[in-house]
Amino acid sequence: MKKILTFTSDFGYLDPYTGEVKGVINACEPEATVIDITHGIEPGNLTSAAFVLLNSYRYFQTGTVHLAVIDPGVGSERDIIAVRTRGYTFIAPDNGVLYETVNEDGIKEIYALDTDAFLKKIGQVYTGSGVIGMILKEGVSHVFHGRDLFAPLAGYVLGGGSLKDVAQEKPSIVKLEVMNPVLKGDKIRGRVVYIDRFGNLITNIKAGLLSPGYEIFLKTGESVTAVGSLKKTYSLVDPGSFLPLIGSRGCLEIAVNRGSARDYFNARCGDEVLIIKQADRQ
Amino acid sequence: MKKILTFTSDFGYLDPYTGEVKGVINACEPEATVIDITHGIEPGNLTSAAFVLLNSYRYFQTGTVHLAVIDPGVGSERDIIAVRTRGYTFIAPDNGVLYETVNEDGIKEIYALDTDAFLKKIGQVYTGSGVIGMILKEGVSHVFHGRDLFAPLAGYVLGGGSLKDVAQEKPSIVKLEVMNPVLKGDKIRGRVVYIDRFGNLITNIKAGLLSPGYEIFLKTGESVTAVGSLKKTYSLVDPGSFLPLIGSRGCLEIAVNRGSARDYFNARCGDEVLIIKQADRQ
Amino acid sequence: MKKILTFTSDFGYLDPYTGEVKGVINACEPEATVIDITHGIEPGNLTSAAFVLLNSYRYFQTGTVHLAVIDPGVGSERDIIAVRTRGYTFIAPDNGVLYETVNEDGIKEIYALDTDAFLKKIGQVYTGSGVIGMILKEGVSHVFHGRDLFAPLAGYVLGGGSLKDVAQEKPSIVKLEVMNPVLKGDKIRGRVVYIDRFGNLITNIKAGLLSPGYEIFLKTGESVTAVGSLKKTYSLVDPGSFLPLIGSRGCLEIAVNRGSARDYFNARCGDEVLIIKQADRQ
Repeated sequence: MKKILTFTSDFGYLDPYTGEVKGVINACEPEATVIDITHGIEPGNLTSAAFVLLNSYRYFQTGTVHLAVIDPGVGSERDIIAVRTRGYTFIAPDNGVLYETVNEDGIKEIYALDTDAFLKKIGQVYTGSGVIGMILKEGVSHVFHGRDLFAPLAGYVLGGGSLKDVAQEKPSIVKLEVMNPVLKGDKIRGRVVYIDRFGNLITNIKAGLLSPGYEIFLKTGESVTAVGSLKKTYSLVDPGSFLPLIGSRGCLEIAVNRGSARDYFNARCGDEVLIIKQADRQ
Repeated sequence: MKKILTFTSDFGYLDPYTGEVKGVINACEPEATVIDITHGIEPGNLTSAAFVLLNSYRYFQTGTVHLAVIDPGVGSERDIIAVRTRGYTFIAPDNGVLYETVNEDGIKEIYALDTDAFLKKIGQVYTGSGVIGMILKEGVSHVFHGRDLFAPLAGYVLGGGSLKDVAQEKPSIVKLEVMNPVLKGDKIRGRVVYIDRFGNLITNIKAGLLSPGYEIFLKTGESVTAVGSLKKTYSLVDPGSFLPLIGSRGCLEIAVNRGSARDYFNARCGDEVLIIKQADRQ
Repeated sequence: MKKILTFTSDFGYLDPYTGEVKGVINACEPEATVIDITHGIEPGNLTSAAFVLLNSYRYFQTGTVHLAVIDPGVGSERDIIAVRTRGYTFIAPDNGVLYETVNEDGIKEIYALDTDAFLKKIGQVYTGSGVIGMILKEGVSHVFHGRDLFAPLAGYVLGGGSLKDVAQEKPSIVKLEVMNPVLKGDKIRGRVVYIDRFGNLITNIKAGLLSPGYEIFLKTGESVTAVGSLKKTYSLVDPGSFLPLIGSRGCLEIAVNRGSARDYFNARCGDEVLIIKQADRQ
């Protein structure tokens, strides 16, 4: 069984931070195969990160360890958590980024890292490793837990290390709701929760909520635009024209064929999307 | 033999799309080593993508599977093709992106995917895989064939799966010519087909077309600039000065030493480059 | 033992250059695991690249080969060097990028590549490789030594190839000092040597130089700002407020909690940072 670890962060691609994390993971678990989900999360944007994880984790084989370091509270008292679900282990700061994902997959156990116990343990487990020895000697950075705590923990878990030895079970984690459109009668009030590189506006309205005979409106700034009825794919409208469709996240998206809906509508994360049954408007 | 798969796309680095594709590939073929050529192709730019592939494929060991997902027509009727050449297997949408590359390496067989047969087949081959089971259950996304069709196909081919079982042979593929400068007497009319991160203007004029006693002109907007005679390397002109040279693609490039020719000339892909024999101007 | 090779460059992520380098490395050494440190170094910025290497190399297991291709002088007479240190092998152009790093780890041997001998050698060692055969046949590009010389050399060294056979020992390398703040009495005059994606201003003043009872000033353009006293972590000031702290590089950084110090101060690499003992100001 290949030991796959996915890595999601807001570290970007300009700096050596992701490389250092991978160095430490490999120092702990030489059989690790690290797959980047993305490091392009907007700095500190927990909603985006939560949405990315929620949609990506299932595309990796059962047993994969998912590491997500979006950690605007690094150095504060927030916990570092490891959550065992039905199919995976997730490691992240306890800031809500895992909330919907681990609930969807089914939580089995939640652990909060005991930093002191963990550092003692890895000093014993990785006695021969110069990398771990150095981290222990220099002390954990107050601002880069990704490298000094998350990476050793990810390597340790990937290698089969016991969480009970280095962490305490806890009953719950911080709640962050992304997929929470407001349903009221026949109206749905959702929002743009993610905008991708192509400028597609991805909403928190799942396909299953939409029924025939509705209208879809996008509100950006002072403008409200009726974006028409659902299409199956981009090419069903002319290049440069907008359309709503069910995207690859299984959610309502507003797109422009061979163009950018973000630019077309000057849209931003958080913009409102309204679904109104046509009957209601008469 | 290491099972290498290269991956080229216009997915960028902000989103989780490339990560999901790699998750699916690894779920099908755990021995896969995926190497990114680039995901920085301008969205939908088939010329850039074709040029990148044409210049990169040879730097990978024989037997490598090259996956290229630049797919502005996703969801339309375009075929998904797999092309066996003398040394490699290429997988891409049939939109021209492979045309010059597979012809250069030498086409052996061209297959068009039979989607229904393929989905049935992978349901049998990957019975134990939760990932493939989930894709089959949720249905193929109309807008992200990269994850739901190209990735399983790439994993299947990398693992030695038979194309005959899941695709029909076809006689030809969509034609897209990039390396087609116009030769007329002693004149060559080419164009900038790729601009790299350093701002180098890469043309479709191969080194072999250039002979001594010519002049090189770059046309940008209303301006025409004589860029001088070929130099061997950047450092043969002063920092900040422009020069023509044969770049690493084996093509004429116009560059600025320790600067950006794109910025210097305000140049764009498609800008004309003229080669005129000096005798002709007298 | 996993054969790890790190790869740092200024190639960026838009182009196929890093992919081609990895193709060649894998063609030479199929057991290679290549880990990107970053390819986001500003083109030709040797100071940034030197600072990145100096801080990252230790996070990889002993025996790792570190390849750094920041090569604004490609094609000029600069040497290609391989340096054996206490724990690692480093490969780079001899332009100063390795200077502080190899001195910190402890130089054992310095080699300058003998290009002709090396090309002859790899023609023999990798007889069966189409990739190396092609490079030898087409000739080394004058502008992309990364692919045609550094990559084969990295693969060769990673596979245990002897440097004595393909290079000459040399006594010293080009000097480039980054971590050289000026100490004068109780004053320290340093500078911003790196700005990361989060906008943190990282200086060349190591934590050990700072003692209690000092004041820290940042000079940007005509402004001088007293940035207060060292904090342990970002969250000790309000969001949007600035603070000095010891960052993950072990150096003085000036940051803005949940914001960008670069934007806040309109700061640039090279900006001065002054440390003055409070007693001196009375």
